[in-house]
Amino acid sequence: MASLIHKDLSTLRWDGELPGTLNMIDQTLLPEQFLRIDCNTPEETWQAIKRLSVRGAPAIGVAAAYGLILGVQHNAHLSQNEFLEKLNITADYLAESRPTAVNLFWALDRMRQTAATHADLETPQLLERLLAEARAIEQEDQAMCIAMGEFGQTLLKEGQGVLTHCNAGALATSGSGTALSVFYAAARAGKKIHVYADETRPLLQGARLTSWELQNNDIEVTLICDSMAGWVMKEKRVQAVITGADRVAANGDAANKIGTYSVSLLAKAHGIPFYIVAPSSTFDFALATGDSIPIEQRDPTEISHGCGKQTAPAGVHIYNPAFDVTPAENITAIVTEKGIISPVTTENIAAMLKG
Amino acid sequence: MASLIHKDLSTLRWDGELPGTLNMIDQTLLPEQFLRIDCNTPEETWQAIKRLSVRGAPAIGVAAAYGLILGVQHNAHLSQNEFLEKLNITADYLAESRPTAVNLFWALDRMRQTAATHADLETPQLLERLLAEARAIEQEDQAMCIAMGEFGQTLLKEGQGVLTHCNAGALATSGSGTALSVFYAAARAGKKIHVYADETRPLLQGARLTSWELQNNDIEVTLICDSMAGWVMKEKRVQAVITGADRVAANGDAANKIGTYSVSLLAKAHGIPFYIVAPSSTFDFALATGDSIPIEQRDPTEISHGCGKQTAPAGVHIYNPAFDVTPAENITAIVTEKGIISPVTTENIAAMLKG
Repeated sequence: MASLIHKDLSTLRWDGELPGTLNMIDQTLLPEQFLRIDCNTPEETWQAIKRLSVRGAPAIGVAAAYGLILGVQHNAHLSQNEFLEKLNITADYLAESRPTAVNLFWALDRMRQTAATHADLETPQLLERLLAEARAIEQEDQAMCIAMGEFGQTLLKEGQGVLTHCNAGALATSGSGTALSVFYAAARAGKKIHVYADETRPLLQGARLTSWELQNNDIEVTLICDSMAGWVMKEKRVQAVITGADRVAANGDAANKIGTYSVSLLAKAHGIPFYIVAPSSTFDFALATGDSIPIEQRDPTEISHGCGKQTAPAGVHIYNPAFDVTPAENITAIVTEKGIISPVTTENIAAMLKG
Repeated sequence: MASLIHKDLSTLRWDGELPGTLNMIDQTLLPEQFLRIDCNTPEETWQAIKRLSVRGAPAIGVAAAYGLILGVQHNAHLSQNEFLEKLNITADYLAESRPTAVNLFWALDRMRQTAATHADLETPQLLERLLAEARAIEQEDQAMCIAMGEFGQTLLKEGQGVLTHCNAGALATSGSGTALSVFYAAARAGKKIHVYADETRPLLQGARLTSWELQNNDIEVTLICDSMAGWVMKEKRVQAVITGADRVAANGDAANKIGTYSVSLLAKAHGIPFYIVAPSSTFDFALATGDSIPIEQRDPTEISHGCGKQTAPAGVHIYNPAFDVTPAENITAIVTEKGIISPVTTENIAAMLKG
């Protein structure tokens, strides 16, 4: 798995010190083209998040933290009050880029909190402290990926087929991934796992990103259409399902890429365990259940024109929710960086993550 | 619904008498381009079936019957034995075009049977009799579509949302369709139904064909990705599922476009009725259950390059079954031209169709 966490293939990185640049893979171009892009302003970062050049809940969090630095790094000359006002305005702006993944708000809040906690510092030192915090968020994300992978791989057995949906890999984090980190850890542990990757319409993160990432990391992968998930279960090709999440409510209801809810029901119908892998930063304890998780609605052209040409008649009505919510009762276990939560209950989640 | 069964918009038609031409919509080009093509030989017909210019179990049956005429229409000078040999060779050849839809074999067998039954005719008269039989297959298909629609619409209520998968419409038959005929009949009965059409990867028959066909026939339709089927059920947007079938075993197990099996499980999980609409020609009484229905495996490039550009990395392993089998226990009812079979059991099917 070295290749994708090697510096040149890292999903995103901060180049330089202060001032610096947020550099990332433009994931909209994969797998046809591997291109890195620079973000020099919060606006460029906002656009990169919105158009999915960088995507995946943990990676969005890290990108937002650095995007905030981009917004204030030329303002060390301001008074602390003026600087904090600029910081807050930039954070509010970045928070509008996407609505569902909670890591975005979590990272921005952590940066705001850092600024509040260091109110005694002069502005240049405060700016340095904020960059250190963004770097800490990135490094903790990397460490959490490794930990989740190690916990998660204990759930898999040699020779199993495992279905995944969307991309919850290195490309979705600043480390080795959430769900896909489990496959890398299983490989390190000497277990041979065969991954079935749902292509994940409309934007094909499974086809474009997961199969590319796993192929680059020498994990056996077979690409299927989303509509084949039930059939590969029926044919006993898969013995487990592992996905990431974009926001987990206090009771374990989990928002993730559209289609995850269906896959959870199909797993249940076949008696196959359904696992979610997500760091503590993906949990939103402000929401008791998943009912109030906001679901992003995206442009209909992602469906009608998403693959490079028009595939639906002009003017047809299209419904394009980007996420759905899988109820906790469908989730066999949630793997976090602190351990495995199972059964998935409000109490067990609190005991693991709030302890 | 007039537009699509109007002569110029008919899915396929026999032009002329003897010799004649099989003319059809090239469905691979829809919705971007509406183009009719001629088949003048069995080889052209075979290719048209194989590449899905004409698809849908009933339409394949009609196309094969006419394709057989194309193979023998210039052989009226042959002795009857030579003519019958030519007929059989051509039928064997056409039967190899696709493996799953039984209507193909059913129509070819009916044509062979017609030839056997009229062994007393001179070759020119036998040829005429065979063309009459092909026309009868087409006309019966049209009548069956109407009958299925009328039976089926009694299952729907005013204001319901109904999910369908793939295209089981006028474009899949020589008439008004199987599953979609139900929507046309409901509209004639004054019921307002809102159809949700799965786009149906990899070849997007739902996006390209069903939404185009329903739009052209003034039926309200919303296009979704296959991965959204479970979520629209969870959101209570749909109250029933209706699909066609490519082959139904004696016990009611039904092969249909890949993804149908998943949809049947999702419907079951939400307590939503799942209906299949298929004429008697789609039933294969030689198979006790669906376990032995052959499942066509299609080219991986349909998934990796299906939408007009490469969407998966080169060399990735791809699994591309074109059909799956929905067990009878997941099917609330099967609507045939003779009536509605429910519950779906070997006995009830035999009573309805063999009576």
